Amino acid sequence: MERLLSGNARALARAITLVEEGSARVPGLLRAVYHSTGRAYVIGITGSPGAGKSSLVNVLVDHYRKAGKRVGVIAVDPSSAFSGGAILGDRIRMQRHFLDREVFIRSMANRGHTGGLALATHDAVDLMDAAGYEIILLETVGVGQDEVEVVDGADTVCVLLVPGMGDDIQSLKAGIMEIAHVFVINKSDRPGADRLQADVEQMLGLRDWQEHWRPPLVRTVATGGQGIQELCARIADHRAVGVGSEAISRRRRELSRARFMTLLSGRLLKEVVRRVGSSRVDDAVEAIASRRQDPYTATARVVAEAGMGES
Amino acid sequence: MERLLSGNARALARAITLVEEGSARVPGLLRAVYHSTGRAYVIGITGSPGAGKSSLVNVLVDHYRKAGKRVGVIAVDPSSAFSGGAILGDRIRMQRHFLDREVFIRSMANRGHTGGLALATHDAVDLMDAAGYEIILLETVGVGQDEVEVVDGADTVCVLLVPGMGDDIQSLKAGIMEIAHVFVINKSDRPGADRLQADVEQMLGLRDWQEHWRPPLVRTVATGGQGIQELCARIADHRAVGVGSEAISRRRRELSRARFMTLLSGRLLKEVVRRVGSSRVDDAVEAIASRRQDPYTATARVVAEAGMGES
Repeated sequence: MERLLSGNARALARAITLVEEGSARVPGLLRAVYHSTGRAYVIGITGSPGAGKSSLVNVLVDHYRKAGKRVGVIAVDPSSAFSGGAILGDRIRMQRHFLDREVFIRSMANRGHTGGLALATHDAVDLMDAAGYEIILLETVGVGQDEVEVVDGADTVCVLLVPGMGDDIQSLKAGIMEIAHVFVINKSDRPGADRLQADVEQMLGLRDWQEHWRPPLVRTVATGGQGIQELCARIADHRAVGVGSEAISRRRRELSRARFMTLLSGRLLKEVVRRVGSSRVDDAVEAIASRRQDPYTATARVVAEAGMGES
Repeated sequence: MERLLSGNARALARAITLVEEGSARVPGLLRAVYHSTGRAYVIGITGSPGAGKSSLVNVLVDHYRKAGKRVGVIAVDPSSAFSGGAILGDRIRMQRHFLDREVFIRSMANRGHTGGLALATHDAVDLMDAAGYEIILLETVGVGQDEVEVVDGADTVCVLLVPGMGDDIQSLKAGIMEIAHVFVINKSDRPGADRLQADVEQMLGLRDWQEHWRPPLVRTVATGGQGIQELCARIADHRAVGVGSEAISRRRRELSRARFMTLLSGRLLKEVVRRVGSSRVDDAVEAIASRRQDPYTATARVVAEAGMGES
């Protein structure tokens, strides 16, 4: 714990492994370090597969390292057995930072139930934060609801688009456009970049931004480093308007509420099973599956038997 | 209730509206009709936006109507404000079935929390089932985790792909490939169909199917009706191997378990709030947000105060 708080990378790595494993030691860990958190700035990077997220993260690490910051990276991988290869390749590309002791890189796999990944990721962010990493880059591989929940916890969310994706912005998961603070057109030297930019501008024009932050659009070529200075300037702009603002405290409250609710429902479900026994739960499931009892009645009975309903 | 069970479309429409609104009358409704469910065959249709899901659903409706079946359609829409237009267009295209009294078409919007949409959709499926619709087509608009959960409840899941999607099968949400029982390459008269087919075959070849159902691949042009007979034959094959099999009863148990767990956690969370008061919950969230208390400690305290933890 002390070694983690003093910034020791091996202690941090071990702590994140405990989080990934869902260890019973996690609550104690978080309790011990939580007062040292809330100092890091968390930048979320999301977008379709093939948009160049890893390359962009790579050059952002370079940028913040040159500015003298300690940088943490969490790459959130989906669990799909069908996409293991690409992810491994991405990680290898980041190896050049492995020798830099002020950079900490970690993958988190999506192996739990819905909500579990977001929970584990936020715990890992807190641990990195407590270990003194000042900038945390949160990269997601997919564009599903899980990934939206993960990056939605970031202070500034960058959504990467890439020209020639076929359905272009339409093919992005609904919900991902709404959480963007900065749009990045990466691989912007490819044909179609102008059209994509026009599409995004048009979409942004549909909304009345007024007191809201209107997401700027930056064109980059991550592999060549083009546009990175501007991207970092736009992230800094968003950070500057956020500091001390009502918007960012509302945002942090919402994140805290989501974490609380996920933990709460996990604990309550465990307690029901402890009280009525797992075979009673299996019976209820069987009654629903065989159409002997509807799901609402089955639920109400188990809640009553556990003494956890209205008395 | 009686009118719903006798197949009255207006009674069904009203009942589904109650489900969408999360009405307190839903548990009673489900209790009353649940014994009449479990007879419909549910076919899930999912894939990226632009893959032609609505057109395919349209021709499938024609097919099953010609076979004399009563057909229900549930189109699950994401909540995104940015995609309202396309969905409306899709619905209009289905209007030609509006005059057919043996076809019932309904959209369900994603407006609740995670899990809420799947729950509402499964309730709506049960209501249609009880009303005597023999084939239920469950169409999702997006490809996120929510949509995966929705179609994963179907008896046969068709995943639509379309040539020239850029990143092709890579751009599908991880998780969607694993739930497919039938792959459909729609718009297969477009360039790139052969390559896409080869990609899918290669991906399927990576897995050892042995005792599992190996998803067949069907090429269609939904707007012209090509390939639909074959698609329906493959769906019938999958249905035939499923009937009475261990695989389908396991599947239905898993779906029942997911419904039960979602209902259970919803009820338990409500009960905690009832017992400790919503301002106590707000305090806990505030303590987490301001870093005064870590999420695990805050959760444990609220659970203890509610008398819903280990005593």
